[in-house]
Amino acid sequence: MALWLLVAILVLVTHTQVLPRRPEATPLLPPQAKDDADAIIDAAFSSDIVYERIAYMTDTFGPRFSGSDALEKALDWTREEMEKDGLSVVEEHVMVPSWVRGREFARLLSPRVKELHMVGLGMSVGTPGKKSLVAKAIVVSSFQELDQRASDVQGKIVVYNVNFDQGYSNTVKYRTLGATRAENYGAVAALVHSMTPYGLQTPHTGATRTTGIPSAAISVEDSRMLARMQARGQEIVIEFYMEAHMLTDKPSRNLIVEIKGAEKPDEVVVFGGHMDSWDIADGAMDDAGGAFVSWEVVRLIHQLKLRPRRTLRAVLFVNEENGAKGAEQYYLNHKHESKLTSIAIESDEGTFTPLGISFQGSAAARSILEQIGKAFLAGIGSGNVSGQSIGTDISPMCDAGVPCGSLVTLDPRVGSLSNNPCKTFSNPPYPDVNFGTSGYFWYHHTQSDTVDKLSPRQLQHCAATLAVWTYSIANLDFLLPRS
Amino acid sequence: MALWLLVAILVLVTHTQVLPRRPEATPLLPPQAKDDADAIIDAAFSSDIVYERIAYMTDTFGPRFSGSDALEKALDWTREEMEKDGLSVVEEHVMVPSWVRGREFARLLSPRVKELHMVGLGMSVGTPGKKSLVAKAIVVSSFQELDQRASDVQGKIVVYNVNFDQGYSNTVKYRTLGATRAENYGAVAALVHSMTPYGLQTPHTGATRTTGIPSAAISVEDSRMLARMQARGQEIVIEFYMEAHMLTDKPSRNLIVEIKGAEKPDEVVVFGGHMDSWDIADGAMDDAGGAFVSWEVVRLIHQLKLRPRRTLRAVLFVNEENGAKGAEQYYLNHKHESKLTSIAIESDEGTFTPLGISFQGSAAARSILEQIGKAFLAGIGSGNVSGQSIGTDISPMCDAGVPCGSLVTLDPRVGSLSNNPCKTFSNPPYPDVNFGTSGYFWYHHTQSDTVDKLSPRQLQHCAATLAVWTYSIANLDFLLPRS
Repeated sequence: MALWLLVAILVLVTHTQVLPRRPEATPLLPPQAKDDADAIIDAAFSSDIVYERIAYMTDTFGPRFSGSDALEKALDWTREEMEKDGLSVVEEHVMVPSWVRGREFARLLSPRVKELHMVGLGMSVGTPGKKSLVAKAIVVSSFQELDQRASDVQGKIVVYNVNFDQGYSNTVKYRTLGATRAENYGAVAALVHSMTPYGLQTPHTGATRTTGIPSAAISVEDSRMLARMQARGQEIVIEFYMEAHMLTDKPSRNLIVEIKGAEKPDEVVVFGGHMDSWDIADGAMDDAGGAFVSWEVVRLIHQLKLRPRRTLRAVLFVNEENGAKGAEQYYLNHKHESKLTSIAIESDEGTFTPLGISFQGSAAARSILEQIGKAFLAGIGSGNVSGQSIGTDISPMCDAGVPCGSLVTLDPRVGSLSNNPCKTFSNPPYPDVNFGTSGYFWYHHTQSDTVDKLSPRQLQHCAATLAVWTYSIANLDFLLPRS
Repeated sequence: MALWLLVAILVLVTHTQVLPRRPEATPLLPPQAKDDADAIIDAAFSSDIVYERIAYMTDTFGPRFSGSDALEKALDWTREEMEKDGLSVVEEHVMVPSWVRGREFARLLSPRVKELHMVGLGMSVGTPGKKSLVAKAIVVSSFQELDQRASDVQGKIVVYNVNFDQGYSNTVKYRTLGATRAENYGAVAALVHSMTPYGLQTPHTGATRTTGIPSAAISVEDSRMLARMQARGQEIVIEFYMEAHMLTDKPSRNLIVEIKGAEKPDEVVVFGGHMDSWDIADGAMDDAGGAFVSWEVVRLIHQLKLRPRRTLRAVLFVNEENGAKGAEQYYLNHKHESKLTSIAIESDEGTFTPLGISFQGSAAARSILEQIGKAFLAGIGSGNVSGQSIGTDISPMCDAGVPCGSLVTLDPRVGSLSNNPCKTFSNPPYPDVNFGTSGYFWYHHTQSDTVDKLSPRQLQHCAATLAVWTYSIANLDFLLPRS
C-alpha cells in the first residue's frame, strides 16, 4: 500500500470498520496525489475537445445504430482521432444485430382522425404482410388492469398508459414486455406511453422483447388523450403500420484505448460508455458523452504524461441499445481479467453536471472511494458516492464480482419525476438524486438527444471527475476490496 | 363611489398620490364585497368543468385554425354548452383569412442528408411552382449580420439562428420580417430558429409577413446544428418544399356571453381569450384556456346569481393567430362603447398558476386595482398587479384609450429564458416574472400545446382570479380613471 494512501485512509475514515485504528484529527494527504488530481482537473477544464468532437460526430454521421454504415464511419473517425491524440487503439470484433425500422405510423381513426406521435420499439416485428392493421384499442394503466380486462383484449391494440411517476425501473417493463403480455390475450399490437416524465409530443423508442405482434411508443400527450377518450366511453380505432424487420447480424467493434500501468500492467481499471445510439437519436447524451468522456480520460493522462500504477482502460462499446453484444464480447474476451479488475465504471446516465459516482461493491471499497472523492473531487462538487443503478455494458463484469460504478450527473435545466424540477433543486440534490431525476429521460432514445443538450463545461467537468476517480483507484496499492 | 370602496382605498392606499388623504390604520372592507369574492373563489374551485371542456374540445375537434371546419364545429359546440349553462350567446360575424399549409419539408442535403424538424410559418407563400427548391444556406444570428453579409445572400436560403435569450419581443421580428429582409437581398427562402428558449426537436409556427419567398421555422436543435456546420466551413445545402397558399376569406364569428349590469348596463368590463389556434396546435393553453376561463367567469357569476353594477362581458375572439380579424371586428362593432368600457382584460399568456394581472393605464386606476387584488385575491396568491405585455385581441381597445390588463400566470414545471427554471423559483417569482418565463413559450404554436400541459386546479385558479378582478371592477362606483 502506498504510504500516502494508507495515511489518507487512516486519517479520513472515521465511520468504517475496515481499519479499526483511531483516525487522527487532521486530514493528511501526500502532495503528489493532490497535485496529480489538480493537474488532471486543470487540464480537463482547459479544453473543449469533448464537446467539439461530439458535435462533429453527431452532426457528421447522425444516428449510430448497430448495423448501420453511420456507426462504422463514426467508429473509423473516432479511431483516427484517437490516433491523432497519440493513443493506440485496439479494435475488438463484435457481431451485432441489424434491425431495420422502415416506414411506420399510427393514426387515430375514431373518435377522430389524427396522426399519433409514435415511434416503433426496437426489435419489434412489423405489421403482418407489410400492411397496416386497423383495430379497436383498449387502454390500460398496468399489467394488473390488463389481466382484469383479459376477455376484452382479443383482436385489439393494447395501449399501456402508464405514468412515469413510478420511475424507469417500474415502467420499462411495459416497453419490454407489453407486447408479449398483450399477445397472450390475443391483442394484435401494443402501444406504450413513452418512458419519460415529460415530453413535447416526443416519442421515445427502446428495445422490446421480440414477440409475434408489433409494438411502438406514443407520446405522453397522445397516450393520455387515448385514456381520456376511453374514459368518456368513446370507441377508439387505430390504424397501425410498421415495416420493422431483422436482417442478419453485421460485424462491428468495440474500441479500446489504455494507459499501461507502470507497476501492475495486468491489473486494470475499466471504464467506458457506448458508441452506438438508437436509429432516431444522435445519441449525444446517450452515450457519445459517456464514450468520449472515457476517451478523454485517457487523452488527459497521456497528455499529462502521468503513469498510474495500474492500467487505465477506456472501452467504447457497441450495441448497448439493442443487444449489448459489445458488452458480452468484451466480457468473453476479458473474462480472465475479472479478478484483476479493480473496478468497472460506466458513464451512461448522461454527461450533465457530475455529482460523483454510484457504487456497487463492498463497504470497505466504498469507504475508500468516499475518501478519494472527499480528498480530490469535493472541490469541484463531484466527489460523492451513492448506491444507485449500474449500467448495461459493465453488468457482465459486475455479475462476475467486479466492483462497479456509474457516473452520476444532473441536468440543471430540467426534469424530475415529480414534474417539478425545482423541488430537486431547492433541496440538496445529492444523495437523493438518481438518473431518473436528472433530465436524462427527457432526451433518452429520442430525436432530441442532441449535442446542444450538453455543454462544453459539463463535459469538461465529467472528464475531470472520471479521470480523477479512475486514476486514483488505479494508483491504490491494492485492488478494491471485494465482498 | 360605493362607500365600501372609498373606505377601502382610503384605508389601504399608503403609497399612492391619487388620494392625498391620510390612510387610517386598520383595513376596513364591507362584508358583502369580501363575501362575494370568497363565494366566487369557492365556486371556481369546486368544479373541473373548464379542464373537462378544454379536454373534450381539443380531443374532439383538434386544431381550430381560422377557416377550418374544426373551428366552426368547436364554435357550435361551445355555443351549445354555453346555452346549457343558461347563458345567452351573441354571435358576431367575422370574415377570417384561410391559409392552407399543405405538405412541407426541409431536408439537409449537405454536409449530410437529414430531415430537418420544420414547420412552415403561417401566411407564408409556398415554394415556386409547387416544386421543391434546392439552395445553399447562409446562417446569420441577427439582421445586422444579414446586412453585413448582404452580398453573399443572393440565391440562398437565409437561416436566422437567433437565440431566444433576448426574449420574444426581441426575436419575433425574425419570424415576422425575416423572409422580407432576406428577399430584399435576393434570398430564395428563410428559415428561422423557433421562438422558444427550449425544445425537444419542437418546431414552432407563427405568423410571418406575407412576402414573395417562403419561410419556415426549424427546431432549436437543427438551427444550432446548421450554425455549427457553417462555423466549420462546411457548405450547407437544403432542399425546401412548401405547398402553402391562401384561399379566399371565410365566415366565422366571435362568441359573446355576458351578465347585464344591474345599475349601469351600458358600461362594461370586457375580458376574453381566443377560440382559434394554429393548424398544428390543439391550442389548449393558447388559447382555449383563456377563452374558457373567460366563459367560466360568466358561468360562475350567473350560477351564484350575482348581479354586478356594470355589465360583465366575455368575448371569445376568432382569428387571433393569423390576422386578428375577430379583434378588429369586435372593435368596429363596439367602438361606440370605448368610453363606457371600464377595462379590457385578455387571457392569452397561458392559464397556469395565476399570479395577478399586468396593467396598462393610469396610476390612479392601477392603485385601485392594487387595492382590489390585495383585499380579495392575496389569499390565493393572484392579487398582484404588474406592468407587462397586452394581448393582441384587446389592443384596438387599448389603443383607443381603454385601460387594459392581461392575466399573468406561471407554469411551475418549466422554463425560463435563462434555461434554469429553478432560478425563477428560488427567487420570489413575482413581480419579475413575465410570460416569457412561464413555460408558455415551450408550447406556443406547437403540437405540444395540449390539455395535459394545464391542470384542473390551475384553470380553477385562473377562473377564480379573473372572476374576482372583473366582478370587483364592474362593481366600482366609477369607470376606472384614465390618464
